[in-house]
Amino acid sequence: MIKLYQYAPSGNCYKVRLLLHQLGLPFETVEMDLLAGAAQTPEFKAKNPAARVPTVELEPGVFLAESNAILWYFAEGTPFIPTGRRERARMLQWMFFEQYSHEPYIAVLRAWHSLFGVPMGKEHEVEERTRKGYAALDVMEGHLQQHPFFAGEHYSLADIALYAYTHVAHEGRFDLSGYPALHAWFERIRAQPRHLLITDSAIARAYGKGTSPP
Amino acid sequence: MIKLYQYAPSGNCYKVRLLLHQLGLPFETVEMDLLAGAAQTPEFKAKNPAARVPTVELEPGVFLAESNAILWYFAEGTPFIPTGRRERARMLQWMFFEQYSHEPYIAVLRAWHSLFGVPMGKEHEVEERTRKGYAALDVMEGHLQQHPFFAGEHYSLADIALYAYTHVAHEGRFDLSGYPALHAWFERIRAQPRHLLITDSAIARAYGKGTSPP
Repeated sequence: MIKLYQYAPSGNCYKVRLLLHQLGLPFETVEMDLLAGAAQTPEFKAKNPAARVPTVELEPGVFLAESNAILWYFAEGTPFIPTGRRERARMLQWMFFEQYSHEPYIAVLRAWHSLFGVPMGKEHEVEERTRKGYAALDVMEGHLQQHPFFAGEHYSLADIALYAYTHVAHEGRFDLSGYPALHAWFERIRAQPRHLLITDSAIARAYGKGTSPP
Repeated sequence: MIKLYQYAPSGNCYKVRLLLHQLGLPFETVEMDLLAGAAQTPEFKAKNPAARVPTVELEPGVFLAESNAILWYFAEGTPFIPTGRRERARMLQWMFFEQYSHEPYIAVLRAWHSLFGVPMGKEHEVEERTRKGYAALDVMEGHLQQHPFFAGEHYSLADIALYAYTHVAHEGRFDLSGYPALHAWFERIRAQPRHLLITDSAIARAYGKGTSPP
């Protein structure tokens, strides 16, 4: 069975759970205590030298890492990847945007403000990350004012990738009240068959422990 | 004709030139004066709301952004993307690794040390970015001690994506002398048919202006 090494509250890990659930693919999870250094052990680095979750074991001894590459792997040949060449590239454009221009700001501030606390010596980074996070949200809002989803006219991996941290951006102290198109898109995402909440994980018990209200 | 909006010294833009040249696809370039804010104009943001280069105009009025998504688009159906499902996902794994765990450290320090100078107020970030850059190089070295390329047994987009900034990492003051497998891989990359240097661009005249010696 597919084995997902994860930290349940992570949006990157949630992406994988959401897709696997929507595809109806059974999987088991291995919860990683990141604060205790579980990803930094030689044993785990043999699975993923980059020492990050999610990491998936496809079959015994065969591992795949990077959330968006994992999404691609499981979605190949399914409606989660557009059939048109241009829409497929557009989907990847948004997935790379997510990892480069969105996650380092919105996900990191959520982790700092709601999960782990702002690390000592990083306080001065909050303002810049906040500004760049809003810039990413602005780009998304602009797109969603013209389009229902991010790649073509249908729900795809780009939506899963961007939804994961955007819908919990308030936990990073982002105020989403000025983003009506984002909220309408949230509703379209939640209306997809077999949607799964970020808290819907048998092993997501830790989630919410330190979270702040919206 | 394909139009590439670029800043010639950028490794992300070099990736696209290298692939297009290796595919034998003719293209023209539009040089963007990033320091003068050329990417921040409303006119350019209509092409790419994320205001970044490379951005490619596929046909009049149709734009694609994010270097690695652009690589994917042009390489579909060519030997630059592995035919095996697992190798294809592995290739994407390394391309996402490049954008998340490599580029923000190695490319940014190169830009600071060799092109634009370290921005005021960012001096304290140099140490952390250096440390994380070496961590990425270590992961690459470990992989290359076991494999000739990054995805499967052949040159692919993952190699183009990672080569772009790694082979000029010394311009970010990274010492590559302790990385023999990286150097051997550099040679394999340079031995590919129709290889192109990062300085091989009719409009790359600006390149090297402020660069420091290795």
